Formats: sequence, structure tokens, C-alpha cells
Amino acid sequence: MPIGGDAPIAVQSMTKTDTRDASATVRQIRELEERGCEIIRLAVPDKRAAESLAAIRRSVSTPLIADIHFDYRLALSAMEAGIDGLRLNPGNIRDSEHISKVVAVAKQRSVPIRIGVNAGSIPADYRPGTSLAQRMVQLAMDQIRLLEDMDFGLIKVSLKAFDVAATVRAYRMIAKKTPYPLHLGITEAGLPWAGAIRSAVGMGILLNEGIGDTIRVSLSSHPRDEVSAAYEILKSLDLRERGPTLVSCPSCGRSEADVVALAEAVNERLQNMDKPVKIAVMGCVVNGPGEARDADVGIACGKGRGVIFRKGEVVATVTEDNYLEALMAEVARIA
Amino acid sequence: MPIGGDAPIAVQSMTKTDTRDASATVRQIRELEERGCEIIRLAVPDKRAAESLAAIRRSVSTPLIADIHFDYRLALSAMEAGIDGLRLNPGNIRDSEHISKVVAVAKQRSVPIRIGVNAGSIPADYRPGTSLAQRMVQLAMDQIRLLEDMDFGLIKVSLKAFDVAATVRAYRMIAKKTPYPLHLGITEAGLPWAGAIRSAVGMGILLNEGIGDTIRVSLSSHPRDEVSAAYEILKSLDLRERGPTLVSCPSCGRSEADVVALAEAVNERLQNMDKPVKIAVMGCVVNGPGEARDADVGIACGKGRGVIFRKGEVVATVTEDNYLEALMAEVARIA
Repeated sequence: MPIGGDAPIAVQSMTKTDTRDASATVRQIRELEERGCEIIRLAVPDKRAAESLAAIRRSVSTPLIADIHFDYRLALSAMEAGIDGLRLNPGNIRDSEHISKVVAVAKQRSVPIRIGVNAGSIPADYRPGTSLAQRMVQLAMDQIRLLEDMDFGLIKVSLKAFDVAATVRAYRMIAKKTPYPLHLGITEAGLPWAGAIRSAVGMGILLNEGIGDTIRVSLSSHPRDEVSAAYEILKSLDLRERGPTLVSCPSCGRSEADVVALAEAVNERLQNMDKPVKIAVMGCVVNGPGEARDADVGIACGKGRGVIFRKGEVVATVTEDNYLEALMAEVARIA
Repeated sequence: MPIGGDAPIAVQSMTKTDTRDASATVRQIRELEERGCEIIRLAVPDKRAAESLAAIRRSVSTPLIADIHFDYRLALSAMEAGIDGLRLNPGNIRDSEHISKVVAVAKQRSVPIRIGVNAGSIPADYRPGTSLAQRMVQLAMDQIRLLEDMDFGLIKVSLKAFDVAATVRAYRMIAKKTPYPLHLGITEAGLPWAGAIRSAVGMGILLNEGIGDTIRVSLSSHPRDEVSAAYEILKSLDLRERGPTLVSCPSCGRSEADVVALAEAVNERLQNMDKPVKIAVMGCVVNGPGEARDADVGIACGKGRGVIFRKGEVVATVTEDNYLEALMAEVARIA
């Protein structure tokens, strides 16, 4: 799984099961793999969680990252168990001798280390008087230098805060200072609706500037929502393709069809479709034909009748009771 | 309702009722007002819809905009009915004589006109060979000149496409060319989840650059979702305040509490709260205390016990069965 350079921006998430429960964790990893999650991180809070990693690693194929705080010995155990990457929080492992022990093994096994700075865990006495963005960058740079001094270069960096503006400033700064791949995230972003929007704003700004090599959306919900949000962010900037894209009009006092219900029904039918097809569901003659023509398959609904387009050509005129089936038949033809 | 300059970025939406049905439309306008919608647009597709506007205008206080396509006479009727603004789509009213009749009345009544360009309705023969962004900008500039030539300056401009990158490029271009307030939107963005994320990416990029004076999120759903998404976008960049903000951790294999369920319960209790209070619900000792300390009220849950913070100070240690009530008691104290 290449990260950085010309590689596609990778989507990651994190299991929310108890890592000590290997079978529940493997089950959740499989759910994430089905959604297209490409890197999966697991919290390793204690020795028993670390011991569980070997069995988990054997059961799945996706690259797994161990998330370590405080105790460097857990990082050593995780690598012993065959984990593919480490995330260390420099705010929480401050002893450079401990870090050097981890780095020696990581180097030997070619295990990448992400320096994962998080606004909430910057030591209170660290560079007071400087901005949050500056402190995040500086803390990461301290750690980068430590790893570089040990001739270790398999580094990724993240600088996450809930504050979108501070996060954006921090990533922009570090992108100028280091060549390492950047893992983007807005931390503790909240419940799915507000959290996905907040993450989309922050990551959208950075991705649009070419900053970011892998992303994780943090949501208080099942991690499948994090993967879904991540792909929607990437799709909106044409950075990745994943499944169908639905263009649908918001409906208004001009609509002559229940275009919201039609869009929902189409979306429901598309749930298990993998192919990146663009489908337009439009409610009137104002923008309808234009948008429907531009999609792979589209319908522009008028008064009791709608026109179906395939790759810009009118292929059928259908009556209202047949909108859904006629549209889905064209979608099936394209897919 | 000032738009542009130093005015706060205004949130708008559009009714999805049949405008000819005045009472249903007034009901939906009131639902939108309750959510904080500051400008409400109504489609005026025909004479009967235009005739309905006077009764609607008398029943509510929020500024109302009439959305007009094709028939300039509907714009004249809407102004007659006391509407506060017009949205005209230059792709759909191309006769400059008709536009001049509308402008004469708008000038006399000080009714602002939004030149609302939409990718789906650009005439097929308009400047072929140029990019979508260029065509949207050029079409708007043509219309701006027409209005300026009539000494009309109460202009707003929007350039909406489903394509986020093209929309961003178009707004950046026009922001350099004109001093008029810009209304931002990503058109036909789809169902709420994907549509809100797509809109957040597009508008987030622009707002972060200082581009945009009023926003409308277009979603295929009840317009209250559009208002909610708009405020979440603006809140994430600290451009507006609106109700509480929930900082909550995504939970992971380290969590010793069901932080997702707690965050959902807190959110449920906050539904009717107007005050812009920042509340943190955190699941462990890694980032928990740091984030909880940074919020107005926060809880950092540990093993069976949690610590409650108010404005950075520990105010209580509570047992697991009391997390929700103890947290909400502090929230009530702050509010």
C-alpha cells in the first residue's frame, strides 16, 4: 500500500472494538474492508491487546497499524506480532531512549511510523505563547529530527485538532518543512452529520491544495461511516472513484415529480453497486436536461413524463409510474 | 438583511412546497425560520405561483426571494407582490429588453437581483471550447454589464455546478472581476450525506479564502437539512455561531465507556439549545482531559469514572451511571 508521491490518497479508519477481543475486531475489520477501507488502525492500550494482534494479523489482509500511547514496549510487541505500521503520539512518549528502541526494530522490519500529533495531548508546558498550529508542527518536527538522527525515514506525519483553521495552518506549515507523506484528520469531529461536514471542510481545503496522502475521518459512530465520508470527500474533488455518484436536484416549488423520493429510491438500489457511474435525478426542465445529459445515465422529470438520457443521448420517454424501473434498467445496461 | 462587506455570511434555503399553496409554503417558511434560515427563496414557475406571493409575504417576516426562469413577467408580478429579492438565471432569460423591464422596476423598488448561473442551463452554443468555469463566469459578466449599463448595482452573483473543482475555479475568477456579493452553492449535490459533504468541501475551500457572502446548501431532502448543513459549514470555520458544538471522540479499542452512546444522548438533549456552547465528550485519558479542558463543558471518561470540566477546571468526578446527568447539569449551569 504505497502512501505519498503519486499514489492515490488512501482511506483509513480505526476499529472501535476491544482489541483484546480478536474475533470481534476481525469482524469489524472485514466490515471496513467491504466498504473500501485500505488501512486499518487498532488501539493497543495494554499487553493483552498487543497479544491479540498476531491472531488478528493472520486473519485479514488489509495493512494494520498499531496505535500506541505511553508504553513503548507495546510498540515492540505489536511489531513482533507482525503489525504493518505504528502510530506514536509524541506528546505521550517523550523519552527518546524508548523511542530509539522502537525505531531500531521498525528499521529492521521496515515498519513505517506515523508521528501522530493531537492537539488534546500536547504537553501543557510545551512552547507556551506560540499558536496551536505552531506547537503541533514543532512537536512533530522535534520527533522527525529524532527519527532522522537514527537514520529512519519511513515516516508519516499527522497534526490533528478539532479546530479546522488551526489544523489547516499546521498542515500547510509542515508540508513546506518536510517531504514525508501526510495523514490528514480533524480530530474528535463529533457525531456523523456535523463531524463529516467539519472534516470535509478541513480536509477539502488541504486536499484541494495538494496536501494530504492518506485520510481518516473521525466520527462518533460505526467506523463504516468514517470510510463512507472519506470517499465522499475524495470523490467530490475527483481524487478517487468509489461506487456510483448521485447528482440530484433539491426539488423546489417548480418540481412536477417527487424527485426526493425518486432520488432516495435510486440510492437504495445503488447500495451494492461498485462501478463509478454518475446518475442524475432531476425534477424539472430548468437544469434537468442539462444535468441529465452530462451524467452517464439521467432522468429529467416533467409533468407526468420524464426523459431518460444515456451518455448524453435521449434513449426513452417514460411515464411517471415507470421512472425508477426505466432509470435502473439504463443503469444496469451501463454497469 | 445586509449581504456582503463585513456582514455575517447569511444562510439561505428554498421552499420545496408548491408555491401556489400559500399555507403549505408559509408553514415550511416557519420551519426554516426556526432553524435559523435568514433568506428564503421560492420558485415562481407560473402566474398562479406569482399570485400566491402577496399572501405569503404578508404572513412571514424573513426576506423572501422569487426564483424566476424563462418568463420575465413573473418577476414583475413578484415585485408587485412585495418580494424582497429576485433570482434570475441568465441562461434562461436571454432577451435584454425583457431584462431591462425587470431592472427598471427593481431599481425603483430597490429589489436586489441575483444573477444565478447554473452549469446545467448554460446554452449549448455559448462559447464552446472554453472551460465550464470560464463559461459560467462569462455568462455572469455579460449579465452584470447589462445591469450596470442600466445603472443598476444591487447585484449578487452565483455560479453553481455539481463539479466542485469547476465551481471553486469559477468563484475565484469572478471574485477578482467584480465587487458584488457572492452567493455560494454546489448545485444538485444529492442526498443529505453525500450532498452535505460535497457542499462542505466546495464552500469550505471558498469561504476559507474569504470568498462568499451568503450560502445555500442544495440537498434532496427537507430544506431544514440544508440550513443545518450550512451552519455546520460556517461553524467549522468559526464564521458563524449557532447552537451548541459537540466535540466527541470517535471511540476506539482504548475506550472504557460507550462514548458514542453518550455523545448521541448529549446531542439529543441539546436539540433545543440555542446558546453556542462547546461541549466535549471524550472516552479515554489520551486526548480526553486536554480536549475536555478546552471546551466550555467537558467529560473525560475513564474506567467506571469520569472527570467533568467547566471552563478548564475540574468540577466533579462522577461514576459511569451518572455521566449524562452530571454533564447536562453543568451544561445547564453554563447556559
